[in-house]
Amino acid sequence: MLSKRNPQLNKNGELIHLLSIEGLPRAVVSHILDTASTFLSVNDREVKKVPLLRGKSLFNLFFENSTRTRTTFEIAAKRLSADVINLDIAKSSASKGESLLDTIANLSAMQADMFVVRHSESGAPYLIAQHCAPHVHVVNAGDGRHAHPTQGLLDMYTIRHFKKDFTQLSVAIVGDIVHSRVARSDIHALTTLGVPDIRAVGPKTLVPGDLAQMGVRVCHNMEEGIRGADVIIMLRLQNERMSGGMLPSAGEYFKSYGLTPEKLALAKPDCIVMHPGPINRGVEIDSAVADGSHSVILPQVTFGIAVRMAVMSIIAGNEA
Amino acid sequence: MLSKRNPQLNKNGELIHLLSIEGLPRAVVSHILDTASTFLSVNDREVKKVPLLRGKSLFNLFFENSTRTRTTFEIAAKRLSADVINLDIAKSSASKGESLLDTIANLSAMQADMFVVRHSESGAPYLIAQHCAPHVHVVNAGDGRHAHPTQGLLDMYTIRHFKKDFTQLSVAIVGDIVHSRVARSDIHALTTLGVPDIRAVGPKTLVPGDLAQMGVRVCHNMEEGIRGADVIIMLRLQNERMSGGMLPSAGEYFKSYGLTPEKLALAKPDCIVMHPGPINRGVEIDSAVADGSHSVILPQVTFGIAVRMAVMSIIAGNEA
Amino acid sequence: MLSKRNPQLNKNGELIHLLSIEGLPRAVVSHILDTASTFLSVNDREVKKVPLLRGKSLFNLFFENSTRTRTTFEIAAKRLSADVINLDIAKSSASKGESLLDTIANLSAMQADMFVVRHSESGAPYLIAQHCAPHVHVVNAGDGRHAHPTQGLLDMYTIRHFKKDFTQLSVAIVGDIVHSRVARSDIHALTTLGVPDIRAVGPKTLVPGDLAQMGVRVCHNMEEGIRGADVIIMLRLQNERMSGGMLPSAGEYFKSYGLTPEKLALAKPDCIVMHPGPINRGVEIDSAVADGSHSVILPQVTFGIAVRMAVMSIIAGNEA
Repeated sequence: MLSKRNPQLNKNGELIHLLSIEGLPRAVVSHILDTASTFLSVNDREVKKVPLLRGKSLFNLFFENSTRTRTTFEIAAKRLSADVINLDIAKSSASKGESLLDTIANLSAMQADMFVVRHSESGAPYLIAQHCAPHVHVVNAGDGRHAHPTQGLLDMYTIRHFKKDFTQLSVAIVGDIVHSRVARSDIHALTTLGVPDIRAVGPKTLVPGDLAQMGVRVCHNMEEGIRGADVIIMLRLQNERMSGGMLPSAGEYFKSYGLTPEKLALAKPDCIVMHPGPINRGVEIDSAVADGSHSVILPQVTFGIAVRMAVMSIIAGNEA
Repeated sequence: MLSKRNPQLNKNGELIHLLSIEGLPRAVVSHILDTASTFLSVNDREVKKVPLLRGKSLFNLFFENSTRTRTTFEIAAKRLSADVINLDIAKSSASKGESLLDTIANLSAMQADMFVVRHSESGAPYLIAQHCAPHVHVVNAGDGRHAHPTQGLLDMYTIRHFKKDFTQLSVAIVGDIVHSRVARSDIHALTTLGVPDIRAVGPKTLVPGDLAQMGVRVCHNMEEGIRGADVIIMLRLQNERMSGGMLPSAGEYFKSYGLTPEKLALAKPDCIVMHPGPINRGVEIDSAVADGSHSVILPQVTFGIAVRMAVMSIIAGNEA
Repeated sequence: MLSKRNPQLNKNGELIHLLSIEGLPRAVVSHILDTASTFLSVNDREVKKVPLLRGKSLFNLFFENSTRTRTTFEIAAKRLSADVINLDIAKSSASKGESLLDTIANLSAMQADMFVVRHSESGAPYLIAQHCAPHVHVVNAGDGRHAHPTQGLLDMYTIRHFKKDFTQLSVAIVGDIVHSRVARSDIHALTTLGVPDIRAVGPKTLVPGDLAQMGVRVCHNMEEGIRGADVIIMLRLQNERMSGGMLPSAGEYFKSYGLTPEKLALAKPDCIVMHPGPINRGVEIDSAVADGSHSVILPQVTFGIAVRMAVMSIIAGNEA
């Protein structure tokens, strides 16, 4: 049974936590995207609120700091009328030597309804989902190098919005694949949704060789990697990669793997360019591309709110 | 007249601030616990909100940092539909050299309705209650070594929930009594509610000799202190006590005063074990006890939300 | 056309951003003050909320830290039923090397409705207003030395409340005029509202000579500057001015420019004393004056909430 293998689903196969896109049935992913579509219209209304989570308490537990991602969850939750509690968790109990599971047990006892968790350790949201009270739902907002499922889902929403059909697409993911939880979540989602041609593009130090077994084509040459692509997903280059000796310099990287109008011309004429943000102009992407007509980077942000509203409202409606 | 001696009560003897349990009439304490009982059911409802404080502005003024306690007040206030303003007060006006009373006067002028105050100086909430505008209510969320009245009240709620009648109980408070505002608040509350046998248990360096005049029996021997107890309240051992030379080591402390299953066997068979959290496993309490069937540590957290809702709704309803 | 020269107004001359008082027509300023008057009564009600901004998302973008000012905007927005998102912007994207305009574009894409911006660079709110999406409204909460328009407006509200008619008044602004965005905003507002006698009082190092062209009389002598004044606006002396060699010492400054009861006796008998806070007792103002019967410093704070509610509700109701 699926529910035994996947802690995200209850015994009816319904989503109760969102921990990873890996292992989610295509129907569940599609249901999230369909629901997000209805919320997108809420965000266009004069009063951008629906009462779906009224009286629910959502805790933002960001063990790893990320103001931007926390903000998107906070907005999404408030538009669902939830009460949002932001915990500055790094300053808090952790510093008093309390264990992660004791912290979680305590917050559960405050009758929390949902934890949105970001953590530098891969798997932390799983541990929390396994140990929290049955009435609590967990959303993974990024764990180590493992997964960033709401980013993966908003990327899928974006692709579906602009391309409609997944089953004919070529998608290139470019950059620091090895350290990227976004890339991992995107690859799982694209595979689940039936994308036939997924390419991982970047230097050998940043693109793992074992991606082939995930059905991904590895390209160390940028021009080859994006040729004929319908979708290009650029990844953010972390500065620490360059100081860590894995890369020569930002300038060298940009020359080989930065997305310029010239390189973009190799892709399909109606190719869309995505990026999880924040972008490094002149490092992984040229300003002319970031601000150009192929870029859908800002629509990704807008869709991200609706996708997070969809995830939260779906899991809150299902019982463990 | 009571109101002259106790700034917490108005001239009708009604609660307008909660500063300390000391001096509160038993009827007021019981009224808080009865009210909390009604809120506990609110917290179990699908929509956990009541509109009692709608449109009221509650300011969390934590001059001393405590994410956990602040969070419990924030949740309680939001469930009462209040607007909650968290002031990072340490970073704020204080650093501009403004006096405490000028800060308070300014916040009062913003038409605050309630201040929840934590301060490292004993008595700071009294000072604030004396000087703030008459429409503002003050709740002490812990001041120096003096008092932590909502913790005391939630401890009483917990005891009443599990033991019903206070007048037949033996209650042992174990640990660092001398530095503990929780212990002081608990002792006042237990006395007010008619508990006949209160014991303060710990090493001589941590248990003051003058407790006898408060009607408390001092025990420097743990086994003697908890024998036959109905309730054991374990206190958190602050790490700084050990580095400060007041104690030999965590291991030595645990050997003498840590609550293990073996020691717990000396108490009544239906004894409950409490702790204000966060717990130090293996320092003041063994994991087998913290997670065992006698432990009511997590119910304390749940009751704490209801008790804080009760305190806030009661004082907001009474005029100075 | 006004709208071409003033980015704060739409083509109908309606307020869509509040960036500066400079260039605002007197009718717009009066409309804000009249609207604030209606909100003042909201703040006295049992339920201090109106649903004018329900479902709107307001972002507090404080690139320069100011807990007090942020709090006043947060309270004002919550009383209008808006959802408030506080961004700890210094810790956030800026540290990831993202540009101001990319941050703003991203937040706009989250379907923000309003940005309240404080920034150490003069003009930053203008830049944001020029580049954000058309549905977003911008309020300047203080930019560099340039402007602090809501402070200016609440000062005008205060003067109008106590003095009724602007056209007969003598107003003295005392202190560090050169570094003060409050002084600049006050001077523009007083001029717009027809105050015939505006005086800038302070030492030569702190009072610019070119104020004369703004229709302001410069006085380096305090006694002369406040003689016969109806209104005295004291400015806060920043500590860094004294360490920077621009002033001898706090004691010397107080002797020359501190407002004492003796100096105040030179003003009109019904003179009001204002200060934007936080006050430095014994530096720019004597405690006897700050706490005395002429002081309207705390009413300024109360009026400030109503004025901010007025500004936000007016701009949110007008389309770009």
